Amino acid sequence: MTERLDGSWFTEIFDRHGSAFSLKVSHKLHDEQTPYQHLEVYATETYGNLMVLDGCVMLTDRDNFLYHEMMSHPALFAHADPKRVVIIGGGDCGTLREVLKHPGVEKVTQIDIDPAVTRASEQFFPALVESNDDPRAELLFEDGVKWVDNCPDESIDVLIVDSTDPVGPAEGLFKTDFLKRCHRILKQGGLMVQQSESPLYHTDSIIKDLRNDMGEAGFDSVATLPFPQPVYPSGWWSCTLAGKGCDVKSFREEDAAAATFARDFYTVEGHRAALVLPPFMQRLLEK
Amino acid sequence: MTERLDGSWFTEIFDRHGSAFSLKVSHKLHDEQTPYQHLEVYATETYGNLMVLDGCVMLTDRDNFLYHEMMSHPALFAHADPKRVVIIGGGDCGTLREVLKHPGVEKVTQIDIDPAVTRASEQFFPALVESNDDPRAELLFEDGVKWVDNCPDESIDVLIVDSTDPVGPAEGLFKTDFLKRCHRILKQGGLMVQQSESPLYHTDSIIKDLRNDMGEAGFDSVATLPFPQPVYPSGWWSCTLAGKGCDVKSFREEDAAAATFARDFYTVEGHRAALVLPPFMQRLLEK
Repeated sequence: MTERLDGSWFTEIFDRHGSAFSLKVSHKLHDEQTPYQHLEVYATETYGNLMVLDGCVMLTDRDNFLYHEMMSHPALFAHADPKRVVIIGGGDCGTLREVLKHPGVEKVTQIDIDPAVTRASEQFFPALVESNDDPRAELLFEDGVKWVDNCPDESIDVLIVDSTDPVGPAEGLFKTDFLKRCHRILKQGGLMVQQSESPLYHTDSIIKDLRNDMGEAGFDSVATLPFPQPVYPSGWWSCTLAGKGCDVKSFREEDAAAATFARDFYTVEGHRAALVLPPFMQRLLEK
Repeated sequence: MTERLDGSWFTEIFDRHGSAFSLKVSHKLHDEQTPYQHLEVYATETYGNLMVLDGCVMLTDRDNFLYHEMMSHPALFAHADPKRVVIIGGGDCGTLREVLKHPGVEKVTQIDIDPAVTRASEQFFPALVESNDDPRAELLFEDGVKWVDNCPDESIDVLIVDSTDPVGPAEGLFKTDFLKRCHRILKQGGLMVQQSESPLYHTDSIIKDLRNDMGEAGFDSVATLPFPQPVYPSGWWSCTLAGKGCDVKSFREEDAAAATFARDFYTVEGHRAALVLPPFMQRLLEK
């Protein structure tokens, strides 16, 4: 009775996790070997356009709102008054768009090493780049780690690490050494947020290690927020916040409730609930 | 670059939604054509055992806690004092196990038309049937709709419809007529809960229709609660509660916070948050 997928499907196999996710594809729109990665864009039948990097699903039109809203709004509302925001990675510009919805933000710098990702987003995901002309936005295409190293001490309010998985080009973004560098450039009261993979697959590995590494890097509070993400392994994803002299387990609830900007997923109640981990995660992290 | 799955994978294709989910299988444990459906059990590499009915994933060892906890605890805590509980379907006994964790419950009757499902659960999912000998539990194998028809007026506190998808054998469980029959057997202050498919795929179809049908059937409050469920279409699922003279948007928060029974997912905060739908769902349901 097992069904078989024919050649009209894009499949990503999550080998170590024994699962796979597939989307039915109409045709391929783009195929490019950049200096950094293999970039593909497909038109799918039901998820709109699909961006793939090195064989891994990055985003689709249909469900990217979940990831982009959760990588931005919880971090920005956890900060008392975020004015200076930095995004490492995030070349598709979806996180940038969400950050720019916060009127108090004065400047956002996005540093992605690969301009081809942004070019592909401009061409195939126009909704994601719709705020790129905002005068508060600065787009740089260079090595994010080097950029952080050249950044003055205590100059950033919120640092968003919107990276690919912690294998390959982004591996360095999950190390204690990098987290220490991030800690250095954050102002007192500042915070960082990093995508931290699947609650089901990675709680006692990547998530636990990242939280420990954040502590070792000097951060004094940490919070992992789970959220649904259909196209990522297990369909369930997370981001992890770390605060420097601020408690990332609290946030500006009144401001979040009063915010009128367009969104599809983020709610005050969802933010509050995401700060309380399911018991199975609590147990794994306490072990 | 598209990867291809070889014969060692079980794949379920969600045709109308253009997506598919696959689990790597070690071997098949069971294959049976019951009088009602095709029942298969596989051993997977990373999700434990997998039960499949008519080609659709029903549950795995690894992630069934999400569904079973969300089909039981929100409904039971939304009721003021649930003593008499009925489960239509639910033959794997996972929902029954969760219901029996509530000490105030005096009797739970589970009515599944197909005894083969419970036999398979006894053999391959022993954790799910561990409470079946509880003296408060009654297991019946007959037509749930007929059972409801023979049930006296206003005799049930909580009715849980733990069915397969609204196509095939379970189609009748999603109709207004059936919902009216459910309404009849519920006491004043009683409520029902039904699995209601994917927030991403079904908000403006099955979920919207079910909520409207519940209203037409006489229920005076309704709430749809989303939750993650990796093995179901889109990895994101929902249940919908409907109250008869009770507001299913509130619940016994103090009792839920004080409860000490074992669980992996359910939290008071998660319950509260699940009652506030993501904006995209709110918009689709209001249209």
